[in-house]
Amino acid sequence: MINKLIKRIEESKAPIVVGLDPMLSYIPEQVKIKAYGEKGETLAGAAEAIWQFNKAIVDATYDLIPAVKPQIAMYEQFGIEGLIAFKKTVDYCKEKELVVIGDIKRGDIGSTSAAYAAGHLGKVKVGSNSFYGFDEDFITVNPYFGTDGVEPFIGVCREEKKGLFVLVKTSNPSSGEFQDQLVTGRPLYELVGEKVAEWGEKLMGDKYSYIGAVVGATYPKMGKILREIMPKSYILVPGYGAQGGKAEDLAHYFNKDGLGAIVNSSRGIIAAYKQAAYERFGPEAFADASRQAVIDMREDIKGVLEK
Amino acid sequence: MINKLIKRIEESKAPIVVGLDPMLSYIPEQVKIKAYGEKGETLAGAAEAIWQFNKAIVDATYDLIPAVKPQIAMYEQFGIEGLIAFKKTVDYCKEKELVVIGDIKRGDIGSTSAAYAAGHLGKVKVGSNSFYGFDEDFITVNPYFGTDGVEPFIGVCREEKKGLFVLVKTSNPSSGEFQDQLVTGRPLYELVGEKVAEWGEKLMGDKYSYIGAVVGATYPKMGKILREIMPKSYILVPGYGAQGGKAEDLAHYFNKDGLGAIVNSSRGIIAAYKQAAYERFGPEAFADASRQAVIDMREDIKGVLEK
Repeated sequence: MINKLIKRIEESKAPIVVGLDPMLSYIPEQVKIKAYGEKGETLAGAAEAIWQFNKAIVDATYDLIPAVKPQIAMYEQFGIEGLIAFKKTVDYCKEKELVVIGDIKRGDIGSTSAAYAAGHLGKVKVGSNSFYGFDEDFITVNPYFGTDGVEPFIGVCREEKKGLFVLVKTSNPSSGEFQDQLVTGRPLYELVGEKVAEWGEKLMGDKYSYIGAVVGATYPKMGKILREIMPKSYILVPGYGAQGGKAEDLAHYFNKDGLGAIVNSSRGIIAAYKQAAYERFGPEAFADASRQAVIDMREDIKGVLEK
Repeated sequence: MINKLIKRIEESKAPIVVGLDPMLSYIPEQVKIKAYGEKGETLAGAAEAIWQFNKAIVDATYDLIPAVKPQIAMYEQFGIEGLIAFKKTVDYCKEKELVVIGDIKRGDIGSTSAAYAAGHLGKVKVGSNSFYGFDEDFITVNPYFGTDGVEPFIGVCREEKKGLFVLVKTSNPSSGEFQDQLVTGRPLYELVGEKVAEWGEKLMGDKYSYIGAVVGATYPKMGKILREIMPKSYILVPGYGAQGGKAEDLAHYFNKDGLGAIVNSSRGIIAAYKQAAYERFGPEAFADASRQAVIDMREDIKGVLEK
């Protein structure tokens, strides 16, 4: 799957992942009115609005991008109905040949991580049958438990040829509270980065490992160091745009081969029609605004990489 | 909810939480045969088996215990169907007046944590209506993101009078890899413990805070120190029994008032019938074996607390 991701990045010339994190406040009124008309102002109505919103954005952008990253929390908040919309979104994006990164940030003791790995990347056995649960291509994983909490995910990745992005340095303002603490003179995130590199060595694709890392765009200096610590790990970079990460800072996250990083934008793309720059599209053409925002982001990053 | 938890612990004289982590391998054949007969060897069949298994154990133990802790991964691995069984389990346990600790170990940047908090503890708004998603009483939370990743959970706890158990020192063998790293001379888990105490101060129940901590039974010396660092936080203690934590070590996790800790056992109770000590019950009476295991665990802990 890492090979497929890289192939799609090279073909699209867009190291971009669209974060499908559909807050209800991002969804235009006409989409909500239609969904609530069919299913009521209910959890099912919210899930329908999310699904229709996602579908329109995917239809308008899938030919330009290699990957999407649905944030499961935005679905899980609507309970079972929300998770049905998550699964529909995953399946639809895979039909469109997009690589799907499930942003689930799971992590637990070994036996529990094994269950999450089975449910999101692999299969479960029921009697003599096997079934995929959510069946994403990549997932994000929280490393707080250490190696034995991550290994079951790596094991399933090996079987299924799928991948992980392990949280190393997150994009939020408080991320330094624990992640930046100095241990033997170096910040904890570097130690986590070294572990990611070590885990990644054991599961290599052609050029890069199946085991990648999450490093926020909001901390470019740290990104530069982590790029060196994990030379073979793809870095998923959240925090560009709405969270404050700037294009010129993104150069640090890439390797000299022009690969090695994929930049996420969520709100900046899916709610583009709400920004002054795309106001001209209006809420009716929200998906066209998203398409334009993808094109602009691609050019923004291309400009930086060409320097 | 922390007051209700303590009241129920005092009434039952059992600082015990039963971990409802139903691996299919724990479920007796007759339960699986019946469920698969009705719904096939499918995800729905697995979910039905899990639900019937849980229901029987809850029916056999609810009068003895204050709380249950369903581990969502064990349900999530069966996709949507599994999560429906999770929700049914949560609702049924609440009907039985049990305190439900959703072992979900979520955590993310602020806006995403807010969505998890809404979905598991609070409500979401859809148009002019509000709905609870999974509606547990407590949840477990991963602190890797720092304060701004935890605060949205605390905010919803304040509104809903619900609570958290934040991961501080986990029970698994590799937990030391990051959690034990020395920062300014002290292990990281102590720093996390101090933060839990600080967060907890802001949301107090009568005797204890709504914000508790997870500290594994497998690290009793660290448990003793963390007990002192977080005097007003309830400690959820996993790792007793199957993972190797011993009763005599549990004393460290309690305060002098005999309160302050609640000990989880999952496999040791729900799969008791598979152990030599409860073999006499046989698979048909698996729920009676679970009841006996709860009684024995209660006496085991009582013996330690009386010393």
